[in-house]
Amino acid sequence: MSRRAKISILWLIGDRGLSGIFWDNDSLAALLALELKVDLLVLLSDVEGLYSGPPSDPHSKLIHTYIKERHHGGITFGEKSRVGRGGMTAKVKAAVHAAYAGIPVIITSGFATDSIIKVLQGERVGTLFHKDANLWVLPKEDGAREMAVAARDCSRKLQRISSEGRRRILLDIADSLEANEKLILTENGADVIAAQESGYEKSMISRLILKRERQGHLNISSLANSIRILANMEDPVGCVVRRTEVADGLILEKTLCPLGVLLIVFESRPEALVQIASLAIRSGNGLLLKGGKEAMRSNMVLHKIITEAIPENVGQKLIGLVASRDEIPDLLKLDDEIDLVIPRGSSRLVSQIKESTKIPVLGHADGICHVYIDKSANMEMAKQIVLDAKTDYPAACNAMETLLLHEDLLNTNGLNDILAELRSEGVVLFGGPRASLAFEIPGTNSFHHEYSSMACTIEVVDSVLSAIEHIHSYGSAHTDCIITEDKEIAEIFLNQVDSAAVFHNASTRFCDGARFGLGAEVGISTSRIHARGPVGVEGLLTTRWLLRGNGQVVDGDKGIIYTHKNLPLEKAMEI
Amino acid sequence: MSRRAKISILWLIGDRGLSGIFWDNDSLAALLALELKVDLLVLLSDVEGLYSGPPSDPHSKLIHTYIKERHHGGITFGEKSRVGRGGMTAKVKAAVHAAYAGIPVIITSGFATDSIIKVLQGERVGTLFHKDANLWVLPKEDGAREMAVAARDCSRKLQRISSEGRRRILLDIADSLEANEKLILTENGADVIAAQESGYEKSMISRLILKRERQGHLNISSLANSIRILANMEDPVGCVVRRTEVADGLILEKTLCPLGVLLIVFESRPEALVQIASLAIRSGNGLLLKGGKEAMRSNMVLHKIITEAIPENVGQKLIGLVASRDEIPDLLKLDDEIDLVIPRGSSRLVSQIKESTKIPVLGHADGICHVYIDKSANMEMAKQIVLDAKTDYPAACNAMETLLLHEDLLNTNGLNDILAELRSEGVVLFGGPRASLAFEIPGTNSFHHEYSSMACTIEVVDSVLSAIEHIHSYGSAHTDCIITEDKEIAEIFLNQVDSAAVFHNASTRFCDGARFGLGAEVGISTSRIHARGPVGVEGLLTTRWLLRGNGQVVDGDKGIIYTHKNLPLEKAMEI
Repeated sequence: MSRRAKISILWLIGDRGLSGIFWDNDSLAALLALELKVDLLVLLSDVEGLYSGPPSDPHSKLIHTYIKERHHGGITFGEKSRVGRGGMTAKVKAAVHAAYAGIPVIITSGFATDSIIKVLQGERVGTLFHKDANLWVLPKEDGAREMAVAARDCSRKLQRISSEGRRRILLDIADSLEANEKLILTENGADVIAAQESGYEKSMISRLILKRERQGHLNISSLANSIRILANMEDPVGCVVRRTEVADGLILEKTLCPLGVLLIVFESRPEALVQIASLAIRSGNGLLLKGGKEAMRSNMVLHKIITEAIPENVGQKLIGLVASRDEIPDLLKLDDEIDLVIPRGSSRLVSQIKESTKIPVLGHADGICHVYIDKSANMEMAKQIVLDAKTDYPAACNAMETLLLHEDLLNTNGLNDILAELRSEGVVLFGGPRASLAFEIPGTNSFHHEYSSMACTIEVVDSVLSAIEHIHSYGSAHTDCIITEDKEIAEIFLNQVDSAAVFHNASTRFCDGARFGLGAEVGISTSRIHARGPVGVEGLLTTRWLLRGNGQVVDGDKGIIYTHKNLPLEKAMEI
Repeated sequence: MSRRAKISILWLIGDRGLSGIFWDNDSLAALLALELKVDLLVLLSDVEGLYSGPPSDPHSKLIHTYIKERHHGGITFGEKSRVGRGGMTAKVKAAVHAAYAGIPVIITSGFATDSIIKVLQGERVGTLFHKDANLWVLPKEDGAREMAVAARDCSRKLQRISSEGRRRILLDIADSLEANEKLILTENGADVIAAQESGYEKSMISRLILKRERQGHLNISSLANSIRILANMEDPVGCVVRRTEVADGLILEKTLCPLGVLLIVFESRPEALVQIASLAIRSGNGLLLKGGKEAMRSNMVLHKIITEAIPENVGQKLIGLVASRDEIPDLLKLDDEIDLVIPRGSSRLVSQIKESTKIPVLGHADGICHVYIDKSANMEMAKQIVLDAKTDYPAACNAMETLLLHEDLLNTNGLNDILAELRSEGVVLFGGPRASLAFEIPGTNSFHHEYSSMACTIEVVDSVLSAIEHIHSYGSAHTDCIITEDKEIAEIFLNQVDSAAVFHNASTRFCDGARFGLGAEVGISTSRIHARGPVGVEGLLTTRWLLRGNGQVVDGDKGIIYTHKNLPLEKAMEI
């Protein structure tokens, strides 16, 4: 049908709910659409489309395809829809009129990100009106939402079982992984062969491989053991982080609890599925997993093994595996059902997801890390740190991308030695205006550039303050390092650089959950909200306030005498 | 010009960057647009529009109006723009071609929320091409962004001055408020008269009034004193919340630091400006304030007094007052420059803001709080709590909206007494299916409804578990309470209800920053990310990881022996 047409003429009609300057002229739109025989009429509303009940009622469902025979008269528009009775009824009337006269109609949201583009791409957004709709076999509605709702339901059951119960599940998963090693490796092998045949990059394929013994690749038993370690770590769920006596007999507790439902989008690396799933169970969260198709068979068998270890009183839908790509846009729309998205993959993947969702995203698009060598640096130390930061693992997000040099270091043996060493290691150097002159190296196009390879940008600055200025202007607030023997200069840098991690005389490569001692790493966040820098299991937790009293009332604050005493905690938990 | 036309024909052309199914056919679009003499040609890109440099470079600026004479040739499209050289150059070529043949063109983002609607409303989005552009007087570009950037710059300076310095600023503000009391009350009086003349609601006007002495209204000296209390509280900025020895001589600290730039949108209540501004200074944050026009004169004088107390080494642009409504949409677009939005006003305001920004929003759209009376409740206690929860301040977000009753309570004197008492206090009762039958009261349209007035919904449930189920289905995860003498039942409710605050035998009205003992309250959050429930100054803070070493490198983790010892903290700070 014409939703797939490459070019379509649209009549865009705003309504009062949507904009101040138009009248509610849906019927006019229908009239004009018929007059002009357009391919498709799109009516923009301030809700996603037509709902089975008041949009404000969580039990109302978006109707993807309107079928006169099924829906006519069966829908209450409800007082709370801000389009108001008038708004939506008028739209539906106009839509039915146009549709049954042969013009397909879609009612969708003017707020929804690029909904019109999606309509033109034939994606399933809003409510479609078509005269033949009653003849179609309709797709299962709200698959994505159902997965998320089921995951939350199971996560609440997971919270109810004992800490020992959650521990038991993790240990069962570990055992089952080892018991099924042969099966896992067979499926994984099939993925690897398929990937090789379809010509994936070597790096991608090596990230795909699971091995029997450690051979530079992660193997099943080391994976199982990491789960056992997680199983035996202190249970964060329910942990009290703050206790206050509000008034006599009125005790307030701030306790840790799961976020709810997590969506993980990852590429290659089948072990990521196992690690994240174990973290989710440890922290009591529901989980939706979306892996790359290059690892599909590995992911499916791992998902099966993990979910089969989940007892009935929790439910296997705790962890959903998202099969097809098409479901991602639907999932990213569910900011009311999914609490956090964690992309594990290229910075392109992260930016794409950040661009296309309102769900909080835990991760980092860029890792443009700086090392600044001050004039007071120990140049031998500087050499070791710079080489480690750039060459230990150039593709890592915590690798050095930009080297800033104090101008007094120009033409010193120490500096020349460092540059020579970088070159001899095979690092290609690009310069900012000052550096490209000083060292006769090609100029860089942008200081805001992540090479993720054996290359880096060099620039000369005249002081620690201009180094900080440069980092604030062009960095990605990930990890930045100063090398100096001058404690005062070091503290200025540590206090003023506004990044997730700021180092003195240590390699940027240390910015990592395991190296920081956080245990399992969820990711590294450059967001300033919720969690920043390397994030451990605490990034999957939120808090609840519990207040226990014996009948206290506020009564205009005359009803009670506040004491606000801090009470000791049984067990401390850092978050 | 025709951007204001109520209806326009658009040719929507996706490009490869934007969707898989279209070809890059910008020039075709221009051709067709000319052929059809359309009013306006819109070319959709995956960036906001044409930039002065590579969109990835933070120094690049969006060009709102393309002027051949000024911009031609002066723009580098840069390797990192994902539209690619081809994409954007082709668009500009097509746009210039069409524009100078008389068809205005706008290049804008297909991702940006409702950008097409905005174009039709004549809002300044994307890049406009018009043959007469060189004749126009252009508006000042990027006013909103400049405010945000200046606020961040000042906030970094604010962090650099001593804790005593920040304390000093707050004390100066307090003194200056008292010194200028007369001026403030004059301006405030003018607002009040204007509001009365334009017929604002009584409640709104009473929230607008600042008084000399306390008369149910907040007065200047009590406001000044609350600032002095804040000035003398422990400085959170720089506080170490976690300290670890990563390896010998390698010490890791997790420290508190400001979020960066806050945007506060508030209605009426001029004192909110003072409270929020003081909190921002205490926590080292930059601030953009947008008040309602009903309080404009009060806000302007308060803003002037506060910013005049900020020393030059910080800068008065630390706190910007947003003058006109038009700037809000621009501000809400700046998710790269603004770290947190805090709406202070109606739930409608909060939902509108949540709908239209990707910046994290701290607040709550609804406060649909439940009180569940279990069969084991002390009914006299239940009466006191229910009456307080509903009538102490019915407009508050922590007031009871739904009363759930265990079925065994039907036809008991205790229950009849509670309902009679509610009625005699003037509370109008609406029932769910079971309650409306049992008590012969009108049925409710939706359980997900906030009355914010002397009315509430009642429903009968058959157990604590169905009460929990009801709360999860229809609540807003704000504050929910159980009344019972059965500790076991109470713990089930406290552990399972997935809300920001869960109470046992205490009024929902206690859910409040001051009553919880958090000091100044930033707001109450129903989000699960960053901060949940009543939020104090910690909600305006994030963390930075500081690592101090003496030359440590990772070298494939062979370079170092990890110890991961937790070290004691000098001063504890709960976050």
